[in-house]
Amino acid sequence: MRILILGGDGYLGWPTAMQLSASGHEITVVDNYLRRNLCREENIEPLYQTPNLHERTAIWKEKTGNQIEVIIGDLRNWEVIADAFSKSKPDCIVHYAEQPSAPYSMLNRKTASLTLMNNIEVTANVIFAMKEFCPDAHLIKLGTMGEYGTPNIDIEEGWLDITHNGRSQKFLYPRAAGSLYHTTKVLDTDLLWFYVRTWGLKVTDLMQGPVYGMFTEESSLDPRLLPFFNYDEMFGTVINRFVVQAVAGYPLTVYGKGGQTRGYLNIVDTLQCVKLAVENPAKAGELRIMNQFTETFSVNELAELVKKAGDRFGLDVKIKPIENPRKEMEEHYYNPKHTAFQKLGLKSVPLTENVLYRMMEVVSQYSADIINKRIFPGKAKWNQFNKTNNTTNSSLQ
Amino acid sequence: MRILILGGDGYLGWPTAMQLSASGHEITVVDNYLRRNLCREENIEPLYQTPNLHERTAIWKEKTGNQIEVIIGDLRNWEVIADAFSKSKPDCIVHYAEQPSAPYSMLNRKTASLTLMNNIEVTANVIFAMKEFCPDAHLIKLGTMGEYGTPNIDIEEGWLDITHNGRSQKFLYPRAAGSLYHTTKVLDTDLLWFYVRTWGLKVTDLMQGPVYGMFTEESSLDPRLLPFFNYDEMFGTVINRFVVQAVAGYPLTVYGKGGQTRGYLNIVDTLQCVKLAVENPAKAGELRIMNQFTETFSVNELAELVKKAGDRFGLDVKIKPIENPRKEMEEHYYNPKHTAFQKLGLKSVPLTENVLYRMMEVVSQYSADIINKRIFPGKAKWNQFNKTNNTTNSSLQ
Repeated sequence: MRILILGGDGYLGWPTAMQLSASGHEITVVDNYLRRNLCREENIEPLYQTPNLHERTAIWKEKTGNQIEVIIGDLRNWEVIADAFSKSKPDCIVHYAEQPSAPYSMLNRKTASLTLMNNIEVTANVIFAMKEFCPDAHLIKLGTMGEYGTPNIDIEEGWLDITHNGRSQKFLYPRAAGSLYHTTKVLDTDLLWFYVRTWGLKVTDLMQGPVYGMFTEESSLDPRLLPFFNYDEMFGTVINRFVVQAVAGYPLTVYGKGGQTRGYLNIVDTLQCVKLAVENPAKAGELRIMNQFTETFSVNELAELVKKAGDRFGLDVKIKPIENPRKEMEEHYYNPKHTAFQKLGLKSVPLTENVLYRMMEVVSQYSADIINKRIFPGKAKWNQFNKTNNTTNSSLQ
Repeated sequence: MRILILGGDGYLGWPTAMQLSASGHEITVVDNYLRRNLCREENIEPLYQTPNLHERTAIWKEKTGNQIEVIIGDLRNWEVIADAFSKSKPDCIVHYAEQPSAPYSMLNRKTASLTLMNNIEVTANVIFAMKEFCPDAHLIKLGTMGEYGTPNIDIEEGWLDITHNGRSQKFLYPRAAGSLYHTTKVLDTDLLWFYVRTWGLKVTDLMQGPVYGMFTEESSLDPRLLPFFNYDEMFGTVINRFVVQAVAGYPLTVYGKGGQTRGYLNIVDTLQCVKLAVENPAKAGELRIMNQFTETFSVNELAELVKKAGDRFGLDVKIKPIENPRKEMEEHYYNPKHTAFQKLGLKSVPLTENVLYRMMEVVSQYSADIINKRIFPGKAKWNQFNKTNNTTNSSLQ
């Protein structure tokens, strides 16, 4: 299958590209290095440097003989996306190409506007390019479990049958996200749903939980093939951040009461899920929504698990609740369904002390490179918003 | 009250500005003449020319002594919106500043992208400007009844209490709009709801039905104060279009079966509703949603009503069903609630033969100026989308 991976340089994009390439698919990756540039601008570089896409694909070819095509460009630019679609003639598109950080989206007007306009324009361009170049292709779009927020009722997989005054209809499950970033994914879903029912596109929208981990089968071939690993509050997800805090000897920073519960998954399960979606496409006119996570944990449970693994690793791990910079419920009902991928055959990897222990082994190799000021969160506050600011925010320095 | 009217040159923006000015408020209007420019580009000029905003406000001052401030600029440009907010220091913002045509949004990639990016960026900038300049001001945003689509259950006013597996929550009423334009209003609502609950803004989101008519109390002072009156399929709403078709001796073009039912209102009722919203603001942290229409009609019922009025006027009005260029249900359940404005005291004007007769009197004064090719719809087809097209679409010529 010819597969176009948008955002192919990212934490998930690159491992996905390798895995689908290893499975025999013809892969083209597109990226504009937005995340690398934002990390540099905000001085929140990842734990270790990763080669650029041309370098990574050269290493991949050297190790496996498989070619991955690279296009560098901004998918907001129609010429870039038209070029990518017309050259790669995709049967399937995996769309990761969005600004992926919730705190970054809440920092100031510039970062909010960038997140909103980037994410919505890229998704719209993908839809328009499908209509023009490959109306029968299958789009796999990365959404987020955060689209649902934390409602007081069970979270179904994308849709909800509603009966009201004696009549019934199936609707998109009502969404209420907790950050502007998450809200852009809600907008994406609305937009995709409109064009799916109007043009009969085939779309899978993955409501993914926060991902943790760094190891995949393909990255084991060469450490230079590892994905990005950010540990700051902007681009580092909570488990990865806690592991780095533990190794650095900093207390694990729990926001508020720590009862915030979410659905998590290991990076290898992201790859499994995307592969299952690739191999079992949505039908024409179908917006197939699947909840992509494997286990739910509260932040307190995660902190305890990291502490246990860290103590076994010989670290003296402390846990320190801090004032919650976000606006969110710290104790809430949370019962999200996730059976769609199980039905497709997902065999998931649980989060264990051993998984965390192995992450600590790698992270501790870089312990000298950990920059303390990148560890502590709380710089992006949900109720604050920088005043007119056309230059890069300097509050992170 | 200091009121900032965004999109103050439009079909509703200008009459709103006059009415609120006549009520003693201090008015500033902002517009970038987007609609005038699009009409010129697409060769779908309105029935009669209207003076520009500087000219209109000068006439208004001459007739009433009231000053309306004018700012010409694009609200996607932060400097323009920051200037407008910092100069006018609004207590209330009325936001009409969006590309308002469904067919235009479905024409080709250029018009779709313009609609999406314009509408979402202006709304985001309004939110950011409120946070920076006037966090306690009240925003009145024009949405559309079209956000709801035509669900099989009763349409409530913005919100729906849902019980599922024995637990309950109030959600935004699920939305499923019928065009990209209408979908941009859904995105606006999502964005507003996020920032209302995060920042505690005061927002009224008006789900307005198609508006008809041209006369308001203020425009009776001078015919040069009349609003735009488009009769093409892009910018002309259905009743206005039917009246012009009747006067021009063209059959009224009903799409498909003509059972499409919507909620309509007279332009004077739009003004009443907006004034009621201005004088009864939303509370801090409240997204108040009100369904703004007064009567529901099917397209067939409208056509029959226009035919009756036209026949009395001495026209021989024919009705001609044509292939539906849209993707929509032509027969459907439709039961939208609209009690919120009644509770605030709205005394609405019904659509009668007399109302249509009076419109025909004015339209017939311009019958020599009616351009036949502007009368017939069907150029914007929901299932067609122009290929790569960076120049103005010429299919309308």
